[in-house]
Amino acid sequence: MKKLFSVVMLLVGMTVTIVAQTARDDIKANPWLAGSNYVDYDRQLPDFKYTAAPAGYTPFYFTHYGRHGSRWLIAEDSYERVLAPLRRANQQGKLTATGQKTLQQLEEFNKTTDKRLGDLTTVGERQHHGIGKRIAQHFPEIFKSPGVAIDARSTVVTRCVLSMVAECEELMAANPTARIHNDVSESLQYYLNQPRSGKVKEARENMDRKAVQEFSDKNTHPEHLMMLLFNDPRWVNDSIQQKKLMRNLFEVVINMQSHDDGYDMLHLFTNEELYDQWRIDNVSWYVRYGNAPQTGNVMAFSQYNLLKNIIETADTCVTIGKPQATMRFGHEVCVMPLACLMELGNCGASILDFEQLEKYWRNYKIFPMGCNIQLIFYKPKSGEGDILVKALLNEREVTLPVASTSTPYYYKWADLRKYWSDKLAKFAQ
Amino acid sequence: MKKLFSVVMLLVGMTVTIVAQTARDDIKANPWLAGSNYVDYDRQLPDFKYTAAPAGYTPFYFTHYGRHGSRWLIAEDSYERVLAPLRRANQQGKLTATGQKTLQQLEEFNKTTDKRLGDLTTVGERQHHGIGKRIAQHFPEIFKSPGVAIDARSTVVTRCVLSMVAECEELMAANPTARIHNDVSESLQYYLNQPRSGKVKEARENMDRKAVQEFSDKNTHPEHLMMLLFNDPRWVNDSIQQKKLMRNLFEVVINMQSHDDGYDMLHLFTNEELYDQWRIDNVSWYVRYGNAPQTGNVMAFSQYNLLKNIIETADTCVTIGKPQATMRFGHEVCVMPLACLMELGNCGASILDFEQLEKYWRNYKIFPMGCNIQLIFYKPKSGEGDILVKALLNEREVTLPVASTSTPYYYKWADLRKYWSDKLAKFAQ
Repeated sequence: MKKLFSVVMLLVGMTVTIVAQTARDDIKANPWLAGSNYVDYDRQLPDFKYTAAPAGYTPFYFTHYGRHGSRWLIAEDSYERVLAPLRRANQQGKLTATGQKTLQQLEEFNKTTDKRLGDLTTVGERQHHGIGKRIAQHFPEIFKSPGVAIDARSTVVTRCVLSMVAECEELMAANPTARIHNDVSESLQYYLNQPRSGKVKEARENMDRKAVQEFSDKNTHPEHLMMLLFNDPRWVNDSIQQKKLMRNLFEVVINMQSHDDGYDMLHLFTNEELYDQWRIDNVSWYVRYGNAPQTGNVMAFSQYNLLKNIIETADTCVTIGKPQATMRFGHEVCVMPLACLMELGNCGASILDFEQLEKYWRNYKIFPMGCNIQLIFYKPKSGEGDILVKALLNEREVTLPVASTSTPYYYKWADLRKYWSDKLAKFAQ
Repeated sequence: MKKLFSVVMLLVGMTVTIVAQTARDDIKANPWLAGSNYVDYDRQLPDFKYTAAPAGYTPFYFTHYGRHGSRWLIAEDSYERVLAPLRRANQQGKLTATGQKTLQQLEEFNKTTDKRLGDLTTVGERQHHGIGKRIAQHFPEIFKSPGVAIDARSTVVTRCVLSMVAECEELMAANPTARIHNDVSESLQYYLNQPRSGKVKEARENMDRKAVQEFSDKNTHPEHLMMLLFNDPRWVNDSIQQKKLMRNLFEVVINMQSHDDGYDMLHLFTNEELYDQWRIDNVSWYVRYGNAPQTGNVMAFSQYNLLKNIIETADTCVTIGKPQATMRFGHEVCVMPLACLMELGNCGASILDFEQLEKYWRNYKIFPMGCNIQLIFYKPKSGEGDILVKALLNEREVTLPVASTSTPYYYKWADLRKYWSDKLAKFAQ
C-alpha cells in the first residue's frame, strides 16, 4: 500500500475533468454540503433542464437504484458519545454559556432518538415524494403509459422500504393504471446490497488505515470549538478527547439537516472547520468505496452483482420493448461505488493524492440522502435504429464511458452494454 | 386451571349467537378454511352489501388495523421437518407412488423457500391491493376527499410494511391528492405489536398446555395419511413420529393457498382430517389469544395499548372533524385478540368446553391472511347530533358491545368509547 502522498494521478483510460468552483467555495455557499452522505437531497437540487432526445426517439424503459432518504444517525452511541462529555463538563462547571445551550439543545433532541436510530425522517420521506413525482413528470411516455409495469424492490432495511413507498405512491398518483409489484426479501440482498467478498473484501481488509487516520488528524483542529464550549482549557486538555468530540459533534450537527424539527447548530463550526471535516470524510469514503488506487481500484466492484442485474434486467425489458420500469432501493454504500463502477461523469476518477482528490471527486455530488442513478432507454419510433440510453446521477445528466452519439448524454446501449460487460468479465477473471 | 372439559359456558354479560352452519360444513364446502391463520383472504370474501347510514349522516374518519397478507411459512424448519422423514423413507424404499409424488412436489416447492421464510407472497400482495381498492370505493366521502390526510404505519416486519405499500398505492390511485404519511419504527411497536407483560404474560405462562395437547392428540388420526404415503406400516411405526408428521405436513399443504405457484396437495387429507386439524388450531389459538376462560379471560388485553391508541387517535380526529384515515398494519396475534377485546360480533365469546367452542367461535372468520378491522365514523351533515360508528371485521358488518341506534350496525361513538375505556381502565386497576 502507498503510504506517501503524491500528486501523480492514475487516469486509467478515462476523462477526468477538474471542476471549476472549489469544494471550499461550494461548502462556503452551502455549509450543509459538508455533510457528505448526510446531505439533504433537497438542498442540492439541479435545474432539471435536460437535453432533448434525438429526433424520432422515445423513452420506453427506466431502470434505477436509489438510496433511502434522510435518517436519524445509526450507531447506538451516536448521540450519547457527544452528550456524555458535555454532561460531565456541566456537572463540573466547565461549560461556557454556548456549551450549556449546546448541551440543552442536544438533550432536547436526544429525546426524539429513542428507538428511532436509523429511521427515515419526514425530511427523507419528502425527498422521495419529490423524486417519485419528478420521475413521472420527466418520463410520461413511460410512467403515464396505460398499465405500465413497474417492478420495485428494496433491501430489507426499513428506511429503504419506506423510501420505496413514497416513490411508488407518487407513481400511482401520476398513473392509477400503473401495475406495481413490490418485493423486499433476504433473497434479493445478493444484488441490492451485495455482501463483501473476494478481492473486494481483501482490499478492504488490507486498506492503509493509518494514512486515512493521519489525514483525519492533520485536518482536525478542535481548539476553536473547545473554547466555544468549555471555560477551562487545562480541564479540557486533561479530560476531553478533543478531536474525537469534534468529529462526533460534527456528525450530530451536520445531520440536523435530516430533521424537520432539528436545531441549527452550524454556528459551532467555522466555514473552514466544516470544510476540513468534509475533506476527511471525502477521503475516507473514497478509499473505502471509490475507484481508489489506495485500495487497488477494486472497491467499485463491490457492486458487481448490482450492475450485472441492471444489465440483465435491461436485456429482458429491451427485448419486451413495452413501457416498463425497474426501481431498486438501498444504501449509499451501493450507489456510490455503483456510480464509480459505471463511470458516471467524474465518479470513476482514480486519484492517488488525498490533497488533490477534491479537485476531481466530491462525495456530496454523488451520495446525498436520497441519491439515485437513473438510466433511461430510448427507442426509435420507427422501429429501426439503435437503442439509446441516458444516465442521470441525482437527476443531473452525466457522461458515460463510451463514445457519445451526436446528441450529448445519449449513448448507444449496445456500446455501453459491451463496455460494462467486458469490465465485469475482466474483474471476474 | 380447569382440566376437565365441561359444557358450561361463561357468558360474561355478552350475547353469544350460535352460528347456523357447522364448522364441519364450512370446511367441507371450502377446505382452505381449515387453514386458520393461513386462510387466503380472497377465498373467504363477503358480499360487500352494507347497511346504509342513517339519513343525514356522512362518513368522515376511518381507523383500521390490518394483518399482512399471505406469506411463506416462518420457522427455519417448516419445510425441512416434513422433507426429512420423507427423504429418509425414500432412501429406504418405503414411499408409495403417492408418497414419492408428494416428496417430489415438496422438493420442488422447497426451492422457492430459500431466504423467503416469512416473506409476503404475490397472493398476499394481491389481497392488499384488493382491500385498499375497496376501502376507497366503499368510503369515497373520506378517501376521495381532496387532500385527505392518511396516516399509515406498520410494525417493523417487512411483510407488514409491504402490505401497507399495496394498500397505500391503491389509496393514491383512487385519489392523487391524498397526503399519505408512512411510518415504520421500533418506537411504534409498543402499540402496533405490544410485547406481552403483566397479567397477560402471567396467564400465558400458567396456561394449561397439557389440556391443549390432549385435545390435539385426541383429534389427530394419522393412519389414513400414513397408508397414503408409506408402503410399510411396521417401518412407519418404528421410524416415523406419525402425529407430528401429520401436523407438519398439514401446515405445509394448507399454506399452499398462500402461493400462486404452489401445489394443490389437499387430496392427501380427507375432509374429516382437515376438519380435525382445524379444530385443534381453533382451540389452541383461542386459549392463547382469545377471551378464553382457560387463560383467565385476560389474553385479549394483550392489545390494551392498541385499543387505547385507537380511542385516543379517534379523539383527535373526531375533534378535527375533517376527512382523515389512520391505517395500521401488523399481525394476526394482534387482530384476533383486538377483535375479542373490542367484542366484535361473536369474537369476545368465553367458552369453557373445547368441544363446544366451534359452535360460537371460529378462527377463520377472524384472522385469515390480510384480516382487518375497520371502524368508520359518521357525523351529521347538519353539524348537530351524535357521532356514530360502524365496525367491519374482514369487510363484514359486525355488532358492537353497546346498544345500537335504530339503524343496525350503527352505534353512538360516545357509548362505545365509554364502554371500551371503562373496560381498559378496569383491567389496568
